[in-house]
Amino acid sequence: MTPEAELLLFEASRSQLVREKIEPAITRGDWVICDRFFDSTSVYQGAARKLDPVLVERLNTFVAGDCVPDVTFVLDVDRATARSRLGGRKIRDRMEEQPEGFYERVRDAYRELARRDTGRVVLIDGARHVDQIATEIWRIVRQRFALDSEIRTRRSAR
Amino acid sequence: MTPEAELLLFEASRSQLVREKIEPAITRGDWVICDRFFDSTSVYQGAARKLDPVLVERLNTFVAGDCVPDVTFVLDVDRATARSRLGGRKIRDRMEEQPEGFYERVRDAYRELARRDTGRVVLIDGARHVDQIATEIWRIVRQRFALDSEIRTRRSAR
Repeated sequence: MTPEAELLLFEASRSQLVREKIEPAITRGDWVICDRFFDSTSVYQGAARKLDPVLVERLNTFVAGDCVPDVTFVLDVDRATARSRLGGRKIRDRMEEQPEGFYERVRDAYRELARRDTGRVVLIDGARHVDQIATEIWRIVRQRFALDSEIRTRRSAR
Repeated sequence: MTPEAELLLFEASRSQLVREKIEPAITRGDWVICDRFFDSTSVYQGAARKLDPVLVERLNTFVAGDCVPDVTFVLDVDRATARSRLGGRKIRDRMEEQPEGFYERVRDAYRELARRDTGRVVLIDGARHVDQIATEIWRIVRQRFALDSEIRTRRSAR
């Protein structure tokens, strides 16, 4: 597949996802959690595949409009840790079968995103145990969305 | 399907077509004839679907690069003629099931293209008989690509 086609297919898929699933959910007042959104396109197709970053950003905006995450967590691990965690897995996707330099560009680009957009993108040390990571993410979510009082209220209402 | 997804899928498909089929054919010295290319995207997704024309042009260039047709024929018919010719056909595609104003925008945009890019786009009166249309197209092709002498040479070599 050409890198251009890959970019365009991800954006086409996201356009449909935003319109059909995410926007109606937000309108209903639901919380929406995505495993990967437009930052992944900036990073994988823009930085790592080296497609024109201006066009990639333009397409991200074209497709997502004002559907921008309130917070984005980047679970940052070095390549050796990532590889050892993937170790047992037989089936890998396109993005997991790239030359080594590709992942370095991916990691650098995600870290750069977190430096540039500190208000939205939170870099999480992903080398720790899953429970520690979950605890940190919950702490940040509670803090950002002032959930503590709401959760307490719900508990005391039971 | 969202208009955005439709645009992106056409461009993704064209990216693959250019890279896999058209460029290798041109490199071999073959002649390539396409039924629809990037002008159709400018017209159907840009003008008729009213997507940002600047972005549509940007994507056309991103995908086709310098793979630009030497000549493009627009077979122009009014809606009544088009409808009567479609008459017997049972299976229609997405583009043939649009409200009436859509086709007016399509026709206007194709005619505008022919006015703007007179060096490449040739408007052909498509209301005539197929033989007359074919004769006119052949005449223009022979003239543009100086084929007369080549064809005569081949005939005399038999």
